Amino acid sequence: MVQLDKEVLENVAWISGIGADPTGGTTRLLYDETWLEAQNGVKAKLEEIGMATKFDRIGNLFGRIEGSRYPNETIMSGSHIDTVVNGGKLDGQFGVVAAYLAMKMLQEEHGQPLRSLEVISMAEEEGSRFPFAFWGSKNLFNEAKKEDVMDIADFNGVKFVDAMRQAGFDFKKEDEAIREDIKAFVEIHIEQGNVLEMEQKSVGVVTSIVGQKRYTIVLKGEANHAGTTPMKYRKDAVYAFSKICSQSIDKARVIGEPLVLTFGKVEPKPNTVNVVPGEVLFTMDCRHTDQAALNDFTAEVEADMKQIAAEMGMKIEIDLWMNEPPVPMDTEIIDVLKKASDKAGVNYRTMHSGAGHDSQIIAPHIPTAMIFVPSIGGISHNPAEDTELPDLVEGVKTLAAALYELAYTE
Amino acid sequence: MVQLDKEVLENVAWISGIGADPTGGTTRLLYDETWLEAQNGVKAKLEEIGMATKFDRIGNLFGRIEGSRYPNETIMSGSHIDTVVNGGKLDGQFGVVAAYLAMKMLQEEHGQPLRSLEVISMAEEEGSRFPFAFWGSKNLFNEAKKEDVMDIADFNGVKFVDAMRQAGFDFKKEDEAIREDIKAFVEIHIEQGNVLEMEQKSVGVVTSIVGQKRYTIVLKGEANHAGTTPMKYRKDAVYAFSKICSQSIDKARVIGEPLVLTFGKVEPKPNTVNVVPGEVLFTMDCRHTDQAALNDFTAEVEADMKQIAAEMGMKIEIDLWMNEPPVPMDTEIIDVLKKASDKAGVNYRTMHSGAGHDSQIIAPHIPTAMIFVPSIGGISHNPAEDTELPDLVEGVKTLAAALYELAYTE
Repeated sequence: MVQLDKEVLENVAWISGIGADPTGGTTRLLYDETWLEAQNGVKAKLEEIGMATKFDRIGNLFGRIEGSRYPNETIMSGSHIDTVVNGGKLDGQFGVVAAYLAMKMLQEEHGQPLRSLEVISMAEEEGSRFPFAFWGSKNLFNEAKKEDVMDIADFNGVKFVDAMRQAGFDFKKEDEAIREDIKAFVEIHIEQGNVLEMEQKSVGVVTSIVGQKRYTIVLKGEANHAGTTPMKYRKDAVYAFSKICSQSIDKARVIGEPLVLTFGKVEPKPNTVNVVPGEVLFTMDCRHTDQAALNDFTAEVEADMKQIAAEMGMKIEIDLWMNEPPVPMDTEIIDVLKKASDKAGVNYRTMHSGAGHDSQIIAPHIPTAMIFVPSIGGISHNPAEDTELPDLVEGVKTLAAALYELAYTE
Repeated sequence: MVQLDKEVLENVAWISGIGADPTGGTTRLLYDETWLEAQNGVKAKLEEIGMATKFDRIGNLFGRIEGSRYPNETIMSGSHIDTVVNGGKLDGQFGVVAAYLAMKMLQEEHGQPLRSLEVISMAEEEGSRFPFAFWGSKNLFNEAKKEDVMDIADFNGVKFVDAMRQAGFDFKKEDEAIREDIKAFVEIHIEQGNVLEMEQKSVGVVTSIVGQKRYTIVLKGEANHAGTTPMKYRKDAVYAFSKICSQSIDKARVIGEPLVLTFGKVEPKPNTVNVVPGEVLFTMDCRHTDQAALNDFTAEVEADMKQIAAEMGMKIEIDLWMNEPPVPMDTEIIDVLKKASDKAGVNYRTMHSGAGHDSQIIAPHIPTAMIFVPSIGGISHNPAEDTELPDLVEGVKTLAAALYELAYTE
């Protein structure tokens, strides 16, 4: 497949060049000039392969080949076109390029599909310009509300609404119906983790997207002189934190995948070498694909930390400020992806996604699954984000095989 | 002792009023105007009770009553006159006031001593204006060198040397002999901890000053996505820190007094909720009165942290940047203080000092011990620093009884 190699390479280079920033990364933010250039560039490419294209009112781009036998049954693939600030060349945009290439290849090899095929290049997923994420996918199902974005602005003070209108887009009409023709959605995305790399797999078939809970916790002990306060008279907040952290991660390690637990931020007060820390603020991020398992584990950790605080005579404040449920992928689409991987001769494994994706917004409405390709060193949201070219190619081949199964067979 | 109550109250109010700052605290820094006013004020008070006074060349103030029988044997008491920035009303200065009041009382009750009695109001201990501590006591033994302070300046850029000369002082002459007449030194100071308060004692007889080691440690793991990186593939630096901290403090708690161990500063990178921390910088402060015990314990903790880092596949850098030996107090002076406490009917205990004091500079040269009075809530270096008046009075009584023993008896 020399040609596919070449096409993947060229198209990734082309798209990531739109919004290339001085650090070697790509910064392409919702409704800015580079975003518009990318969407229009994708539109032109889709039209080159005979697709009918259109934007919806908010700026999601669609390219469509009509099905010969079941034109009202649409098989869709794509991802988001926006990036994080100083992002890499694959997150989001590879899913758009891959959908385009897979459908181009399918048409060349097999002509018109039985069912309609659509590429979607979604307007926004990252929340990197405005403090609102999944603007593209949520608009597909009227899940983004005017009032969510009416008052928000970017880091330069540009209002969301003004940026949208400046780019030529607007809110959806209130009476606009949700499409019911889409029968399957497949999104290909980089893994943004190191599982496929560690296990030397080219493709991951995603069976679910994790639910996540994020907490901020404040432990209040007593600040004391580090020399003159005997150990028995201390209420050392960092010591209490260390008990909570080590004990909870020990438990999470025993339970293992798909549970993950992270204490990412730790801020003691006064944070000085010779004062027993009187207070510590820390965060906890916990994810699992199963809601009951996530709830059970976090309940146990919450109880543990309350007990440790009580035993040490400290106050504890636990604030759960994010609580997203897990989203299972569709079992039939998963099966299609597994068969497609086998058919394409791809070295794959099933796995969950530990990060959020457009597919988690789409899956509750449309049978959905995802294909992952490896991230070198697990790196993402960074100019160093990369995937070996053969793995990108295997991903496109798997997607094409799946779309063939979904759109070209009875 | 109604009169002593009143005199303690008045003198503490008087001295802490010199350099009173808007926060209710006292800021009196080496060689500044308030420092000069305080030293001159103390000088006048000492002269009022018949003492001959003099400054040495760097600004230590001495007030002396000649002994009748052994004039060349001097019994000295005092402390430092400088404060920290925004300090309290007792740290340092109470030791000067108490020495003055004790000697005043002794003269009134018993007349001239057999041995000479001296108050010392030392120029500097805190290192709070210039980055050099123990300037006063170190100069008594030619342990402060010109080159230590030649190039240092305060936060306003005023050079140490200029401030010293502006205040009317200068370096000691190089050929100036160290005094050999001082046969005992007793310093009274606030505890700056909560031991006496917790155990409802009015006085502590200090048997030694701890040695201390301070470290900065950097653990280098691997920053990863908190959602997409399974527990088994992580090198979580905060998790490693939490193991080190909880395990080491557990050990320190089992060993107990006089060992103390503090992890006061913790700075993870990138310190964000959804990233597995790739690095953490933390400090360790460890103190003990016994050098071998301090060395053994820190060696064990260092070995533990290296082992934890190795087990988790992380790099560790351990920087020991302070290593002060413990300083035992003189056993004969300790006995004098214990007997004096008994004689004064004071509720006391022996204890160590977990903080540094002028006495640790003096003790290697002159038989030395310290008297502690309680710190309310263990608070010090803060405008809220305080001691119950009856405890201050008990402290002065104990000091007076000890000075009687040392200077008025054969």
